[in-house]
Amino acid sequence: MRIDIITVLPELLRSPFEASILKRAIDKGIVQVHLHNLRDYSTNKQKNVDDYQFGGGAGMVMMIEPIDACITKLKSEREYDEVIYMTPDGDTLNQKMANRMSLLENIIILCGHYKGVDQRVRDQFITKEISIGDFVLSGGELAAAVVADSIIRLIPGVLSNETSALTDSFQDNLLSPPIYTRPAEYKGWKVPDVLLSGNFAHIDKWREDMAMEHTKTRRPDLLE
Amino acid sequence: MRIDIITVLPELLRSPFEASILKRAIDKGIVQVHLHNLRDYSTNKQKNVDDYQFGGGAGMVMMIEPIDACITKLKSEREYDEVIYMTPDGDTLNQKMANRMSLLENIIILCGHYKGVDQRVRDQFITKEISIGDFVLSGGELAAAVVADSIIRLIPGVLSNETSALTDSFQDNLLSPPIYTRPAEYKGWKVPDVLLSGNFAHIDKWREDMAMEHTKTRRPDLLE
Repeated sequence: MRIDIITVLPELLRSPFEASILKRAIDKGIVQVHLHNLRDYSTNKQKNVDDYQFGGGAGMVMMIEPIDACITKLKSEREYDEVIYMTPDGDTLNQKMANRMSLLENIIILCGHYKGVDQRVRDQFITKEISIGDFVLSGGELAAAVVADSIIRLIPGVLSNETSALTDSFQDNLLSPPIYTRPAEYKGWKVPDVLLSGNFAHIDKWREDMAMEHTKTRRPDLLE
Repeated sequence: MRIDIITVLPELLRSPFEASILKRAIDKGIVQVHLHNLRDYSTNKQKNVDDYQFGGGAGMVMMIEPIDACITKLKSEREYDEVIYMTPDGDTLNQKMANRMSLLENIIILCGHYKGVDQRVRDQFITKEISIGDFVLSGGELAAAVVADSIIRLIPGVLSNETSALTDSFQDNLLSPPIYTRPAEYKGWKVPDVLLSGNFAHIDKWREDMAMEHTKTRRPDLLE
């Protein structure tokens, strides 16, 4: 998979892709992540990529021209499955969406910044608008990193133990049961006996019950 | 405001706090962000912070002892309003929650990693569990950065133009109307006439109508 991220702040995205699972996936050649500085596509001397809103109002708007130039160049080099725009009013990311996107070959992610992009960018170039939730960030960069992380970890070969991803929260519409590790007792706080019993049928039953109870209490909407 | 982030991957979080609005807020002294490497609190020679699950199963669990040591040290230095754990089964972050948290003085954010933390950490030390959405990430680090960003940008003095944050999506339960900037025509794609009219009453009315229509189409749940 190849992910091209278009941003006014490539430096913000550097360390997330240089650490952890994302780096491992890149080093293994399973995924390529390319950061594109939108300013490199600006046509004016000041390297501006934003301008005032038509009609007045606070906040700058990202101009269509540099974005068009960058997307057009990328598209001339290969086919893209999706051109994604990160925006708070997009479709809310969920695990199903991440699962589906993990099967794609090439995607572009455009990070909104300032007040957002000129609407004509959305109308003409964007095939999918994604939000990571009902809150506003100072830019789409962290949101793009979140989307990339949620997708990349699902690609076969990225996680060292693939069954680990399958038992995560949301993959079966249940939250995970509580987990414990050594020591069995710490400051008087004990691990539930069943987990130390060695009886795997009991352990599985307990985990299923706890996952169900936990989901009912915290997220009954997942069970509907 | 002071934010202490406890993580096994401080290097992942470096660039988000060294760029953009977060850096500006830190430089201005409005917010302090401290990254704590959990490995520094490990008591064994290998600097381990995780161990196998009791009861078997894929994925490692973060041990209670180093987390206890780190949180206890921080709490001995100052009072904390919240000790937050980033986890997919926490309360889903939204703008209201970000607004409320932007008023706090000192918070700790513990990033889940691997399969998560020993349940006793959650039972004994955590006052608030937050998820950024119904998807799984390779760790809580990006989620912590998202929470920090959503909060920090709301603190007075961080954004250069404070009215900008107030007109963002979600602050009034409406999505933003479309925005446009120069040029007024690009490749035959035109900016709506009303925005060029100079009639601010008409422009305000158009923006309200568009925000309402956009919200009805995309997110009718926000209007309920």
